[in-house]
Formats: sequence, structure tokens, C-alpha cells
Amino acid sequence: MRRDVFTDDHEAFRGLVRELVAKEVVPHYGEWEKAGRVPRDFFTTLGSLGLLGMAVPERYGGGGRPDYRYNVVLQEEAAAALVTLGTVRTQLDVVLPYFLAYANEEQRERWFPGLASGRLLTAIAMTEPGTGSDLAGIRTTAVRDGDSYVLNGAKTFITGGLLADLVIVVARTASDPGDRRAGLTLLVVADGMPGFTRGRVLDKMGIKVQDTVELAFDDVRVPVADRLGEEGAAFRYLGHNLPQERMTVAVGSVAQARAALDTTIAYVKEREVFGSPVAAFQNTKFELAAVATEIEAAQALLDRAVLELVDGRLSGADAAKVKLFCTEAQARAVDRCLQLFGGYGYMLEYPIARLYADARITRIYAGTSEVMKVIIAKSLGL
Amino acid sequence: MRRDVFTDDHEAFRGLVRELVAKEVVPHYGEWEKAGRVPRDFFTTLGSLGLLGMAVPERYGGGGRPDYRYNVVLQEEAAAALVTLGTVRTQLDVVLPYFLAYANEEQRERWFPGLASGRLLTAIAMTEPGTGSDLAGIRTTAVRDGDSYVLNGAKTFITGGLLADLVIVVARTASDPGDRRAGLTLLVVADGMPGFTRGRVLDKMGIKVQDTVELAFDDVRVPVADRLGEEGAAFRYLGHNLPQERMTVAVGSVAQARAALDTTIAYVKEREVFGSPVAAFQNTKFELAAVATEIEAAQALLDRAVLELVDGRLSGADAAKVKLFCTEAQARAVDRCLQLFGGYGYMLEYPIARLYADARITRIYAGTSEVMKVIIAKSLGL
Amino acid sequence: MRRDVFTDDHEAFRGLVRELVAKEVVPHYGEWEKAGRVPRDFFTTLGSLGLLGMAVPERYGGGGRPDYRYNVVLQEEAAAALVTLGTVRTQLDVVLPYFLAYANEEQRERWFPGLASGRLLTAIAMTEPGTGSDLAGIRTTAVRDGDSYVLNGAKTFITGGLLADLVIVVARTASDPGDRRAGLTLLVVADGMPGFTRGRVLDKMGIKVQDTVELAFDDVRVPVADRLGEEGAAFRYLGHNLPQERMTVAVGSVAQARAALDTTIAYVKEREVFGSPVAAFQNTKFELAAVATEIEAAQALLDRAVLELVDGRLSGADAAKVKLFCTEAQARAVDRCLQLFGGYGYMLEYPIARLYADARITRIYAGTSEVMKVIIAKSLGL
Amino acid sequence: MRRDVFTDDHEAFRGLVRELVAKEVVPHYGEWEKAGRVPRDFFTTLGSLGLLGMAVPERYGGGGRPDYRYNVVLQEEAAAALVTLGTVRTQLDVVLPYFLAYANEEQRERWFPGLASGRLLTAIAMTEPGTGSDLAGIRTTAVRDGDSYVLNGAKTFITGGLLADLVIVVARTASDPGDRRAGLTLLVVADGMPGFTRGRVLDKMGIKVQDTVELAFDDVRVPVADRLGEEGAAFRYLGHNLPQERMTVAVGSVAQARAALDTTIAYVKEREVFGSPVAAFQNTKFELAAVATEIEAAQALLDRAVLELVDGRLSGADAAKVKLFCTEAQARAVDRCLQLFGGYGYMLEYPIARLYADARITRIYAGTSEVMKVIIAKSLGL
Repeated sequence: MRRDVFTDDHEAFRGLVRELVAKEVVPHYGEWEKAGRVPRDFFTTLGSLGLLGMAVPERYGGGGRPDYRYNVVLQEEAAAALVTLGTVRTQLDVVLPYFLAYANEEQRERWFPGLASGRLLTAIAMTEPGTGSDLAGIRTTAVRDGDSYVLNGAKTFITGGLLADLVIVVARTASDPGDRRAGLTLLVVADGMPGFTRGRVLDKMGIKVQDTVELAFDDVRVPVADRLGEEGAAFRYLGHNLPQERMTVAVGSVAQARAALDTTIAYVKEREVFGSPVAAFQNTKFELAAVATEIEAAQALLDRAVLELVDGRLSGADAAKVKLFCTEAQARAVDRCLQLFGGYGYMLEYPIARLYADARITRIYAGTSEVMKVIIAKSLGL
Repeated sequence: MRRDVFTDDHEAFRGLVRELVAKEVVPHYGEWEKAGRVPRDFFTTLGSLGLLGMAVPERYGGGGRPDYRYNVVLQEEAAAALVTLGTVRTQLDVVLPYFLAYANEEQRERWFPGLASGRLLTAIAMTEPGTGSDLAGIRTTAVRDGDSYVLNGAKTFITGGLLADLVIVVARTASDPGDRRAGLTLLVVADGMPGFTRGRVLDKMGIKVQDTVELAFDDVRVPVADRLGEEGAAFRYLGHNLPQERMTVAVGSVAQARAALDTTIAYVKEREVFGSPVAAFQNTKFELAAVATEIEAAQALLDRAVLELVDGRLSGADAAKVKLFCTEAQARAVDRCLQLFGGYGYMLEYPIARLYADARITRIYAGTSEVMKVIIAKSLGL
Repeated sequence: MRRDVFTDDHEAFRGLVRELVAKEVVPHYGEWEKAGRVPRDFFTTLGSLGLLGMAVPERYGGGGRPDYRYNVVLQEEAAAALVTLGTVRTQLDVVLPYFLAYANEEQRERWFPGLASGRLLTAIAMTEPGTGSDLAGIRTTAVRDGDSYVLNGAKTFITGGLLADLVIVVARTASDPGDRRAGLTLLVVADGMPGFTRGRVLDKMGIKVQDTVELAFDDVRVPVADRLGEEGAAFRYLGHNLPQERMTVAVGSVAQARAALDTTIAYVKEREVFGSPVAAFQNTKFELAAVATEIEAAQALLDRAVLELVDGRLSGADAAKVKLFCTEAQARAVDRCLQLFGGYGYMLEYPIARLYADARITRIYAGTSEVMKVIIAKSLGL
Repeated sequence: MRRDVFTDDHEAFRGLVRELVAKEVVPHYGEWEKAGRVPRDFFTTLGSLGLLGMAVPERYGGGGRPDYRYNVVLQEEAAAALVTLGTVRTQLDVVLPYFLAYANEEQRERWFPGLASGRLLTAIAMTEPGTGSDLAGIRTTAVRDGDSYVLNGAKTFITGGLLADLVIVVARTASDPGDRRAGLTLLVVADGMPGFTRGRVLDKMGIKVQDTVELAFDDVRVPVADRLGEEGAAFRYLGHNLPQERMTVAVGSVAQARAALDTTIAYVKEREVFGSPVAAFQNTKFELAAVATEIEAAQALLDRAVLELVDGRLSGADAAKVKLFCTEAQARAVDRCLQLFGGYGYMLEYPIARLYADARITRIYAGTSEVMKVIIAKSLGL
């Protein structure tokens, strides 16, 4: 059905992105996967084309067009080409909004040009070895000492942490036994600050093109000038930004489920078994009809939420529903598609295998399906 | 999330319907179920309020406002009150469109005032004992003889057939061995025509408020003047109207799933077990969060399709996806909700039990889920 | 696969039961359903054939062969004929074991001959309007007064309560704030005792052949001589007997799922649609292959548990697993089978419709699926 | 529940295997995975302990105890230690039975001692790039020329093909247009035969410890003396051996699902989130209860089939049911378990991630779930 989300501008942008993906991503994707990261120069390429700074105000070198739909197009076009943009997505959809919303004027001047140009790579560090999705349980501490905070703690599962020049770290600056959510603050730790070290690069089942690392902070002195937003306000900031982070996972999930469907339709038409194309079997037809149907539903749900997000009206519970539904639909879709490839579906040379391995994370990161259900249930008064 | 389907007019209409349902349906619903039909005078009540003739042109006593969204509101408000409008839905959503689209001027004058006033009840007879969803396999014959067709055959599963004054019968007027779909014609059989008899009222698992009957035609002479549309064009007409018929099933499915969720939320909050409200258990929260999520997806999908339908642009394949998804979501939702009632969920005095029994038909009528998948698969090029 | 459960004696018994079902049940089943109960004379017929007293010691007129496998055969043969034995199952599998295990010598003499002959019909009353599966929450009280207990309270969902001559009532004779499970006692209330009244016969979605009623006790004086077992021991007794009660639900579930499969296989071979038997479609083959596979798994699990039960070694957690799996497999099986009938599957004249409506209770009664999971989780150390 | 499969001999053997796995497999498993194969010297270690030759007659250096239950124990103990035996399983469970059943006396003398000692590694080559599970579509040809067959063709997905000293190749020696299954013959191709080359080692999503390779045959002259069994009999031989091959997949599936459950139970008890152990959440309890239940059912089904197999009575359709059920249960189990690990579940350092990636192949190899359904449906007369 006709999607009511995009304007002509977005569709023009889509054409541009499609070309870019074909030229700058697809030919290199295998290497990126082997290397375990998107290379730094891809960021500067994107930056020079204005793709990283679209939402950054013009006076800092950006495009001055904050519109989440461009981010949607980016993910959709990458997925359609059976690749992803790796940590570019995290930078644009997850980290950048914190800078845009909470940086003060001095920080904007310092950081925005680099963010727009792709010179500054970023990450956000929330999760700790012992906390998972429980942000209120954060134990990394930042103790004020003169003009600095002294930061101590460890973070894990940090996407893009390997190359990040700036890492937004969620740290505890105060503790209130009556309110676990109080006293959290965002600090921007820069590459090279003494005491800031990167730990292991984690070996994941999929999303090989994104690095995921451990970070350690051992008496890192972070200038107060590098605090993002107000002290103690981080939980509120996170609550405000998490819906978009979850949406971005959902956008990728739907786009990749659709890519899985498309590549599978092409495969079953061409591949023969028992003397007929796989497409000729009723089971194939019914499986793919079911998959297409779920994707159509996911897309309609997602598009409605994209418009709500663009209008600044998307609730946390609705974002949770969207993430829950879209990632679970993706899981079902990719599993059913892979099955139709038979043995080839298990071989990494076929993108469906990678889509399957990649898909397993979406029900987990940016808040597990269980956390989504907790949020949704609360909104139902339960 | 905000639905983008309705205007203020629809919402005003919603208020009116809500009152009507509370006053004219809810208090009598138990009797209607026992009687196995919506009574004739409910139709005339609706007619006198202008609810049956909204889509009928004003010069025939109608409202002149053909807009499927009013039909949506009717079903939604009935469902919200844990009832249905029974055969009113069939009359308005399924049968009336045939009259509106294919009646000639003389027929309009003859029939439209009665359709608008609720004086004429209607049904459509497609299915035959041996054909199921396979319309091309219809064996009821109509042989031209002078100014009449001589109609012979049997139909089954005819909703509203018990009281119908006019029955649109799909009959074969010609047979083409090379094209099973050719040669089908719509004839309007009136109550009282010699040779037209009603057979058994079928005993169904649910939807007790709708009668479902067998009809027999034994040398019924139907005047050519009572043919609806052109001879031989019925398959095309059906193809054109089936998307709306399927949409109307989907609208009911989503509305009833939502009603199931609402009544369950109320129940689990009040009901205690093992010393706590049922709502306090994480399983309850998670089940209902999952149900709410699926309903949100179904609603978004459905609403998108409603707008397409209103714009005259809904394809058969998209209608099939919507029916498939919404009815399957309903099945899962109602089953999960019922489970949370424990033993009470099995007692018909609790509406959830009726919602469950009613729900089992939606994956079957107006084309089974399997037929939907056939249609969808074709649209995928499979 | 070969079942390793039955001996030649059981198979001989199976032949006898098959004939009995064909002659004494099948022709009358419609009437029984309409009447909402199995008639009293069917019990005496069974009694005269020795089928009710098999487990009762010979000196009280029984067969002296306590072997649960005979009960299994009874349910299997009824299901194979697309009927059930209604409250006979409850009497034999659920209530009788309490009498056999806990009746003292005087009670045995008084009650066993009638239980064996079918003259005494029975029920057990656990559930209360406010407690559901939470037995420890029972509020019906029995206060000792001389040689009697004075019984007050209300019970609901009592299978067979309508005709029961003897009702085992679980009542609270003491309350211990530290142990909700203490202080429960079994009292046998006889028909006609002053203050004992039967309330509404509940209108259920299915299992129409079993009456389910409310019971009320208003200062009923139950002689101490009619207490079953020791005072305060009921919770232990229930815990001991519930595994068999759950097994009996599982036995019925598997037998009825198998019956659904068999009747569906016969139907799809004979019924044509789109010019071919329904059986010719790959979707039909795959659906029924999946159903047959689940039934095979359920049967293997169940049979293993039957042998454990016969050996007196079946744990509560294992019985819970069996009930959970077999009833959920039944639900899936019956739903998938019904779908293949198309519209006919919704008509009560087709047994599949009744099998569907009947099936919805098995995940609820004798402990809901949720209660089963609680029990299983405990056994996993969670 | 008590399993009725094993004798004291099997349990004694289990103890031995447990030690062996702990000492010879677990410490090296990471290296094996990196190398992509089980090393040759592990085979000779197993051989020297008598584990490879148990089913080989004593006069050829074997144990003379053909009993599939020993193979079951091997897989179970490996899985319990969160590893597998890689291609050892294929050698013992899949390839060896062909040698045992069809080798003539001369071949026995030549090959059996090496098979028993672990000196000869083996593989079987059925699948071709264009055929998948469709064995009757095999296009590799073997043309008789004097005392040799001249073999030409290509095979793919050959487990253990990298190191195999002997490869049983299914080749077409004749073609009968009326019977696609006729004319297939087993030839034993030895390492080093001119024209026999190994192609790419395929990069798989999981089961990294097993090599999977392509093989090419270019005018390979295979002596008639190296034909296994009769010419043209291969399809029958495959039909006879496939049930065991499918059983061996099912055995691994159940054992690995159980291992997943065990490691998850341990994890959720120790891991804290939101201030409580993950095990304390009802969702965790219910998920694991459901998983444990499915595993219990799978185990009961599987054990029944193992006994049938040992008795030489397992039908192809029953083996298909077992493979279908056990592999699908594994998929559901491992997915649900992984979810409870949160982000850690996606990290390959946690065995659950490997169990997940490994599990995706079992619904595909040795005949896909779809092929299983075809076989089962036939047995139902559909």
C-alpha cells in the first residue's frame, strides 16, 4: 500500500543514497565485515556529501534540516542493497540527537562541525557489565573535583566504541537511595584522555560490520565543560531519546525483513528442486505470502510512528510497541525466508545467512523485548 | 497512536452510534442471540435514524454520503460495547455496495427507498454446498426463458438469509469450458417467488446473533428486470466488491480484539488470585502488552487500507493481506485474553467466551486465510 | 510408533469399550448434549458391566483391578468415536481416587458398592467464586460442633454437581496465618442434607455434555463420620491426587487431538475445492503432517507418564509438563484441523466444531497452563 | 521422567565419554572451531579407545557391539559439556552404517580396520549444487569402462570432506526416464585418486567445528572393486539409512536444547538485573518452564524412536516426525534461552550464541523440514 511518509524531497534523497550505497558500500562490505568496522573514511565521504550533518544547524556546517525521515531513507536503501551502514546509523540516529539537544553554545562550536563533516566519530556508553537494560542500576561514578569530574567505571556492548573520538558516558554523579534514577549525568569523554582505555572488541554472532567494545575509565578527568546538559538530568535525557533509538532499530528491522523477502522471492523463482522452481510449491507461496503480510503490517505501524516521531509526539510506550512488533516480525520473516534456501541459507556467501545472524540482536539491544513489554504494560495501567 | 482516518463528522457520528448501541442493542443482545437473528424492527430503527441509507443517494431517501468510514465507526462502537450489529453489517458492507454499483435506474427507484428505510432486508448468495471459496465453481444455473431466468440450484452459509426480502444470487447463465469464471450473473430473488425456499438454519459455534441458512431454488422464475448489472459480469463484480467485504471482516476483527483486550484489562485488575490481582503477575502484563502491540499493528495496517479503500485504490492483494493479518491477530489476541480469565473465560456469561467463539469464523468467511495467501502470493509474482 | 503401554488385557478391554461406545453413547450423544448431562442410567449401565468399579476392591463389589490404563482406554475409545464420556471421566479419574485412598472401613462399606454399581454419582468441590486455581485461598468453612461440622460457603465450576449424590467438599477447618495450606479438610456432603443447595447450571462454550454447577452450603451439618481422611490433611491429599487429575485431562487432550486429525484426514480426502480434493493441496499435507507430528510427540510424552503414574512414581512437575504440553498441542491441532474444513468447520453438525469448543477448557481446568508453569519452574530450581 | 532407553552398560560408557570429552574436547574446542575441523588425531584417540569401532565386527578390530544407543550417549555427553564431536558424529552415525551394511568381504578387510582405528576418515557425498534434498535428481555420472567407473560431477555441502580418506559418492550409472530413482550407485572415492579435487571450504553461519566442502570429480577412475553394494541400488540404500541419519540429527537437537536450557538456568540464577536475579522474574520462570516441557516431549518422542531403531523397526515416516519435531523444538528452545541472556546471548564467548548459530542447520540438513512433511503426509495417505 501507498506509504504516506515521504515527500518528493525524501524521494530525491533516496535516489542519491541508492547510488552512494551501490558505489561506496556494496563493493567494500565484505572487507568491512572482515575488519569488523566501518572505516573512518566512509564517514568523511558521507560528511562531504552532507549526509552526516543534515540535522546540524547550518551555522555549524550542517544542512539545517532535522527530519528523521532522511535517516529512515538511509537505512532503507542500505537494506535494499543487502548491506547496512553499520555504526553510521548509531552515530546519526542514536548519538547525534544527544549532542543536538543538550550541547551548549560553546560545545556546539567545538563539536558540531566535526560531527557534520564526519571527522568526529562518536559513541554512547550506557550499558555496564552488570546492568543490561537497567539504566537506573548504573555504577560508573563521576565525582566532581574542581573543574573536572573524576570518572571511574566500566562499560560494555559499546557500538562504535573502537574508533569513537567522543564517547557520551552515562555516569552517576550522585546517589539517592529513594530514587535510583536520580543523579545520572552525561559526560563526553574524548579519545586520548588519560585513564580512558578500550577493552576487548567483542566477538558477536552477527552485525560484524559494527564494532562492539568494552570501555574502561580509570580516574579519567573529564572537564566540567565537557558535561552534556545538566548534572543529574541524564535519566530524563535518556528517556527522551530512547524512543528514537528504538525506532531506529525498528526501521532497520523492517527494511531488512523486506530485503530478506525480496532476495528470497528472487531465489525461489530461479532455484529448482524436484524438477520445479521452489516458487512453484504451495508451501513456498504461502510462507512468502505470510511474510509479506507481516511486513506490510510492520511497515504500516512503523510509518505511523515515524510521523508521530517527526511531529514530536511519539510516546515511549508507542515506540516500545513498534520496536517489539517490528523486531519480532523481522525474526519470524528472516527465519522463514532462510528456510526456503535450504542448505544455501546457512552459507554466509548468501546474504540471507547474514540477515539471519544480524537479526538476532534487534530483539535485544536498545532495550530487550521484555523491557518493551514492561513499558507497554505500564501504559495499559497494569 | 493517533489514527489519521476520521474527521470530526465521523467522530460526531461515533457519539450518536455509541448511544444507539447502548440503548437499542446492548439491552436486547441476549434475546437476539437466543432468537438467532437481529430483529426486523432494529433495521427500521436504524433506517429511521438514517444509518442504513447513508450511502444511498438523497433522491431515493438516503443520506448521499457514501463513505466507508461510517461503516467502520458502526462496527467499532458495537464492538466497544461487546456486541455486534449482526446482519446489519452484512447488509451495509457486503450487499448494499452491489445494489449501489449495479442497479439500473428502474431498480434504484424500486429498491433504494426500502434499503434506506430498513424495510427491505437483503442477503447475497454465493457459496454452494460443494464449492466453498471457489466462486468459479458455481453450479446454480439460470436459463433465459423469455423475460425471465429460470433459476435452479442450492446455496449455503447465507448470512441473513432467514429474513431477507431480496437475495442477490450468483448463478451461471453460460458456461465456457475454457474460462470457469465466465458466464456468472447476479439475479435478485425476492421473498415469495415460487420455487424459492429457505432450508435449514445452520447451528454455528458462534456469531449466534446472525442467522446462517441454506437456500434452494427450484425453477424460480426471476424476471430479467431483476438482474443486477450485465449478464455474465458477476465474476468481475465480485472481484470488485470482495476487497470491501474482506475489509469489513478485518474491521470487525480488530475492533473485537480491542474489545477483548479492554474487557480483559478491566478483569485482571479487579480479579484476585493467590492473594494479588491477576494484573500484578508479570505473565499477565507481558501477555497483555503483546496483545496490545499486535492490535496496534493491526490497527495501523487496517487504517492505511481504509484510506486506500475510501480513495478507491485498495487492491485485492492488499485487502487480502489486511484480512489475513487482522483475523489472525484477532485469533491470537482473543485466545490469550480468554486464558487470563481462567474458568470464567469458558462461561458464556462472560463476553470473552462469546468473543472467542465468534472469532473462529473470521479466518474462514469472506475467503479463508488460505485463499488470502493464494491471492497475496500471486501479487508477489509467485 | 508402537506404544509400550498396554497389555493384551487392556486391548481386550478396548474392544469391549469400543462396542459399548458405539451402542450406548454415540446414538444418544446429541440428546445428552442438549440435556447438558450424561444421564444417570448410563452410569448404572457402566456399573453393571463392571466399568465403574474396576479399581474398587472385590469385597465391595468392584473388580479389584486398580490400573489407570483402563481409564486411558475408556477416554481413547470415546474420543475415537468423536464423543466423550462426560462426567464419567470425572467420577472415575478424579473423584474415585479420593474415596479409594482415604475412606475408612465403615465408609468403604457404605459407599463403595454404590460407586461400583453406578448408583452413587459423585463430584468434588474445590474451586470457589473468588479463588480459581488457588486452593490455599479456600474460604468455605467447616466448624466442628459435636459430632458434626457446620459447613458454610460457596463453590463453583463443579463438574457433575447437578446429579451428584455425594460431593467431596474442600473446606477450611482451621486457619493458620503462617501456612495458608494448613487447615483444609475433605467432607462428603450428601444430596438432601439440609442447607445444601445447587445453584445455577453454568452455560459453557463447550463440553456441553458435562454439567457444571454452583453449589452453596448454608449451615450444612456434615457428620464427622462423613469426613474423608484426616482433619487438616486435604492440601496434602489434593497434592497427591492432582497429578492424576491432570493426567486425565492430558489423556483426553491427546485422544481428542487424534480424533480431530482422523476426521480431518477423512474430510480432506473426500471434499473437493477448486477442482481437486482438499487433500491434494500441499498446504493441507503440510498442516496435517505437522499436526500428526505434534500428536506423536504428545503421545510419547503421555505414555511415558502413564507408565510412571501406574508405577506410582509420577511427580507433580512431570504431570504438569504433560498437561501443559498435551493441552497446548491439542489446541494447536484442533485449530489447524478445523481450518481445513472451511465454513463447515464452524457448523456444530461437524464434530470438529465441537472438538474445538471443547478443547478450549483443557488449558484451564485442573490447573491453568500458568499454574503448570509455576510448578514446573519450581522443579527447575527457579 | 525416567528414560527407559539405556542399560547399565550404556551408563558405564557414559561415564567414560564424559571424562573423555572433558579432557580431549573441551580444552581444544576453541582451536577446532578456528581451524574449522576436528583434527585427525582426535579420531585416532577415539579409535584407540575403541569408540569408533564399536559397531565394527571384532575380527576387523572393532568392538562387535552394534548398538545405536552408544552413539546417542556420545552426542549427549558432548552436548552436556557444551561442545559437539563435529565430524565424528557424521563418520559414526551417517557414513559407517553404509560400510557396515554394504561392504563385501574384501572391502571389509581393506577398510574396516582403518575405520575402527580412526586412521580412515570418511564422508558421504549426496547433495549436488543443483539438487538439494532431491536425491533422485542427482546428475553426477559414473560410466562403466572395463574394471572401472569413470566418475564426473560435482558435490556440495559435504561434511567432513576436507580430510576424508574415503568418500562414498552417489552417482548415476544409468538413467531411466520412467523412474528417476533408478540407476544410482555408491562408489568409494579415495583421497589421491586422479581427478578428485576438493573445492571451497564453505563459510557457514555455525557448526564451525565441522568442515563443509565442495568436491569435484573429473574423469575419476573408480575401480569396480570400490563400488559399495550393488549397481543401481543406491536409492534403496539411502532410503534405508536416512532414518538413522535423521535420528542422529534429532539426538543432537534434543541434547543441545537441553544443554541450552541447563546453561540458561545457571545463568539466570546468577545474573542480576533491576536488582534481582533474572530467575526471579515470572517471565523467566515461564519461559524456561515452557522450554523444559518441550524438551521433555522431544526426549520422550526421541527415546521411543531410538528403541524402534535399535529394534530395526523405525519407519521412514516416524524418523521424519522425530527429526521434524526435535529440530523445531530445538529452534524454539535455543531462541528463548538466548533471549534471557540479553546482550551476552549475542556474544560468541557465551556458548548459547554458538548453540543458536549451530541450531539453524538442523531444520535443513539430512532433509529439510519441508521434506519431512512430504514424507509424513504420504504416510497419512495424503
